[in-house]
Amino acid sequence: MGRAFNVAVAGATGAVGNEILLTLERRNFPVNELRLLASKRSVGKELDFRGEPLCVQELMHDAFDGIDIALFSAGADRSLEFAEAAVKAGAVVIDNSSAFRMDPDIPLVVPEVNPEDIKQHKGIIANPNCTTILMVVALKPLHDISPVKRIVVSTYQSASGAGARAMDELRTQASQVLEGKPVVAAALPHQIAFNLFSHDSAIGENGYCKEEMKMVDETRKIMHAPEIRVCATAIRVPVFRAHAESILIEQERKITIAEALRALEQAPGVRVIDDHVKSHFPMPIDATGQDDVLVGRIRDDISSENGLAMFICGDQLLKGAALNAVQIAELLD
Amino acid sequence: MGRAFNVAVAGATGAVGNEILLTLERRNFPVNELRLLASKRSVGKELDFRGEPLCVQELMHDAFDGIDIALFSAGADRSLEFAEAAVKAGAVVIDNSSAFRMDPDIPLVVPEVNPEDIKQHKGIIANPNCTTILMVVALKPLHDISPVKRIVVSTYQSASGAGARAMDELRTQASQVLEGKPVVAAALPHQIAFNLFSHDSAIGENGYCKEEMKMVDETRKIMHAPEIRVCATAIRVPVFRAHAESILIEQERKITIAEALRALEQAPGVRVIDDHVKSHFPMPIDATGQDDVLVGRIRDDISSENGLAMFICGDQLLKGAALNAVQIAELLD
Repeated sequence: MGRAFNVAVAGATGAVGNEILLTLERRNFPVNELRLLASKRSVGKELDFRGEPLCVQELMHDAFDGIDIALFSAGADRSLEFAEAAVKAGAVVIDNSSAFRMDPDIPLVVPEVNPEDIKQHKGIIANPNCTTILMVVALKPLHDISPVKRIVVSTYQSASGAGARAMDELRTQASQVLEGKPVVAAALPHQIAFNLFSHDSAIGENGYCKEEMKMVDETRKIMHAPEIRVCATAIRVPVFRAHAESILIEQERKITIAEALRALEQAPGVRVIDDHVKSHFPMPIDATGQDDVLVGRIRDDISSENGLAMFICGDQLLKGAALNAVQIAELLD
Repeated sequence: MGRAFNVAVAGATGAVGNEILLTLERRNFPVNELRLLASKRSVGKELDFRGEPLCVQELMHDAFDGIDIALFSAGADRSLEFAEAAVKAGAVVIDNSSAFRMDPDIPLVVPEVNPEDIKQHKGIIANPNCTTILMVVALKPLHDISPVKRIVVSTYQSASGAGARAMDELRTQASQVLEGKPVVAAALPHQIAFNLFSHDSAIGENGYCKEEMKMVDETRKIMHAPEIRVCATAIRVPVFRAHAESILIEQERKITIAEALRALEQAPGVRVIDDHVKSHFPMPIDATGQDDVLVGRIRDDISSENGLAMFICGDQLLKGAALNAVQIAELLD
């Protein structure tokens, strides 16, 4: 990248939008103009970027004039309504919602896995679901040794995946429990403090919720491996902003722990934490605020011939959303 | 049971011991004398049973005189030191520790699964590990339809599994986090509030921790199915006293969801909670204080031919420990 870009952030006041600003700044992304866009009720709100206050403007069809890159993180409905306008104004849209992810004409990109797909874009590039991003970053180096045929994954998903209000609700409910007061659930469907529950996205005919099917469909698309079979269970846990995942893979041939460790230790975006003696493995408090996906508990699956088990953890707001989007932007010419 | 028993509870002041007293009372177990035993430092402490205070006595070799049933929940070391003395005094020991579970001469019993094994006892009956108990209660009715060949399980284990001090620590640490104070970890190896971590029992040569291998070995023994292959991942989560488990099984033949539901709905100790519309599935807050193992998210495994996935939840202190022990006692003549 030799030039500076005019960048718009749609959904700038949300949990992910806020991390996008911090990530652009931290990574010295070459921003010329930064335009903060959000819904009407946030207009006039000020957010800091590089130490200067910027005023939030209304997200409208004509808000993208002169913009080179529009980072969308305002939900699928807003993306469907406004992304096309941004593209028409000449911007490349990097969309964090589920709106375009499975559109065969729109690339779905994790820079560590399929950066080359960016070249196919016709104005929009989709940012995958958070749980999928973290998983494919960990699995790609292993898939390159021997193709992954099957994935069984159970998630431990933080409140941040449901937005800033859910994070606040976890905090508020925890106080309510500690003080013996009744717990109020509003942003999330059930009590999250000192509890956990099955992800509340709609359950389809096959019994899987949307969040789980994202891990099936998006993994296949990103890894260019439509034959991979995935059984996912998505569970929300009382953690603020880092997701964890218990993953078992079956590969075409058995790979050794040594092979897996060597590949993971060299893989971009991965940090191996696998200390048997000190019982130190990936944890949300270690992943919070970190760019890398933490990978550990790497061991042979003792229930199959060619299986490997592991436990991973990554910041949902960073690699699971904002960081991945900014990394995509960094690959644009 | 026509007669009343003289019952000793070794480890009466612990989290499980306390639940044993409550469970004996609630289920009207025919107690003649109740003797509370604990380590020296708890001697003289008073605990209520049926509305009357009882004094804690010291757990010693000669403390079992006249006792018919000794419920041990004072850790494996105490069981190894004192169980034999109790047997010599004429008691049947029901031991909640891991001390005797894999001894081929000692039955390991979950009353809903293998009650007939009790008959083989020579003085000691072992109570299985909590995560294993909850799992086999849910799997037995499915195993009876078509044998389970393989289990892939990831746990979401509550603080109570590490004792009353760990439950207190979760509460204290949550306050510390909410107040922005430094978090102190003492009962557990890592911060548990708003965090989660791999179970800290020792990791063996195959990369699995002891807690995970219990789920392998004990499941096979209880279900009389040494051929079942199990891959377990044990994770501690910030929940007070109910464990959850994400379970995938592969069976000899494919069973339908309808078959599974019918079997589970009729199974003793199981309650099906599987409401797709209201997004209501097993949760720790619903399982807390309940005898049943809650089972839901029952669906075809879309990653294998003969697989079934589910999510379960059960009270770790009750069915995972105290209730199962008292249920065993109820089966004694």
